[in-house]
Amino acid sequence: MEEDILGKNNLLASRNRGYFEALKVLALNLMSSPGSGKTTLLEKTIRALEGRRPVAVIEGDQQTMNDADRIHKTGTPVVQVNTGNGCHLDAGMIRQALDQLEVQEDSILFIENVGNLVCPSLFELGEKNRVVIISVTEGDDKPLKYPTMFEHAHTCIINKTDLLPYVDFDMELVKKYALSVNPHLHIMEMSARTGEGVEAWISWLLDLKV
Amino acid sequence: MEEDILGKNNLLASRNRGYFEALKVLALNLMSSPGSGKTTLLEKTIRALEGRRPVAVIEGDQQTMNDADRIHKTGTPVVQVNTGNGCHLDAGMIRQALDQLEVQEDSILFIENVGNLVCPSLFELGEKNRVVIISVTEGDDKPLKYPTMFEHAHTCIINKTDLLPYVDFDMELVKKYALSVNPHLHIMEMSARTGEGVEAWISWLLDLKV
Repeated sequence: MEEDILGKNNLLASRNRGYFEALKVLALNLMSSPGSGKTTLLEKTIRALEGRRPVAVIEGDQQTMNDADRIHKTGTPVVQVNTGNGCHLDAGMIRQALDQLEVQEDSILFIENVGNLVCPSLFELGEKNRVVIISVTEGDDKPLKYPTMFEHAHTCIINKTDLLPYVDFDMELVKKYALSVNPHLHIMEMSARTGEGVEAWISWLLDLKV
Repeated sequence: MEEDILGKNNLLASRNRGYFEALKVLALNLMSSPGSGKTTLLEKTIRALEGRRPVAVIEGDQQTMNDADRIHKTGTPVVQVNTGNGCHLDAGMIRQALDQLEVQEDSILFIENVGNLVCPSLFELGEKNRVVIISVTEGDDKPLKYPTMFEHAHTCIINKTDLLPYVDFDMELVKKYALSVNPHLHIMEMSARTGEGVEAWISWLLDLKV
């Protein structure tokens, strides 16, 4: 049953991948626990990319239009997907969102998944790069306790570094744990709130091949 | 299909409920995002309850024995359940854990669910009280964005209040949002790390009817 659902999703993800290839769209799937700072990261990223690359956003949440409203204020095309009781985005939802979203050629498309460190990891969306975001307030043991997410990710952002003085969090240990689960993971430290590390992330983004 | 799974779970949860009634065990289901401080809260709670009520713990995580090891150090009976790719505990897992865990009469049983603000809310375990924990670092909009969890909970702990000076978090607003989703929710503020609010939580716990 699980294999059936995942098999059907993989087919649709493959179709999305073809769609992105045709338009030279770089699609990133941002995944994390609730409240790790995904939307703040997007706001900062959109501002930093202004004039350099067109951007579009798909926002996933169980309920509310809050995140889409925040992105809309930046002038960026955005579609909100509400999953109701659903715990993750799937490739079919992305396809439907693409029908509403006029993604320009050569865009970067950010897909902000439902806040959940477990379920989204199993559902490919057709993205080029999967980014897992953890914040320093969540503790340094998360890569070991939620390994599937870190196994499936290409990139890991460690966010909220401005809070490091106030929490028990060992930066070297979390990196060691993350790399023990996935030695290919590209790890970046950041405070989306203060802007620290954002420029390095932008340079990395602009160098990514579609 | 979803109804089938939930229906089967509800039957097993009902059986667990009978088991707890027979032994006068007060069972609480603790649910939250990863890294909200559930295990630290448990460590503090166990110490505070020492000599007042017997305690037992069931720990849920995708992987590792880390949390069970932390609880084991307090001398409390504990069983770790690893869910693998699974995103929540279910009533059958609790039943199996109870077979390994010798729960004394009149105990308080804490069930720490997998860190996930979405999926665990739909699966009753036979508990008397469902407690959702959010931390102030997660942002004040979580009750609106993840309403199912707050609808199904009886109690809400707002944790990590020691970090309030360093984050953008409106305590009155989060309470307003949580109560708009569930007007019956009992809300408590706490810093499990500093111990602020722990005594109020212990008094409340000891007053709970089995």
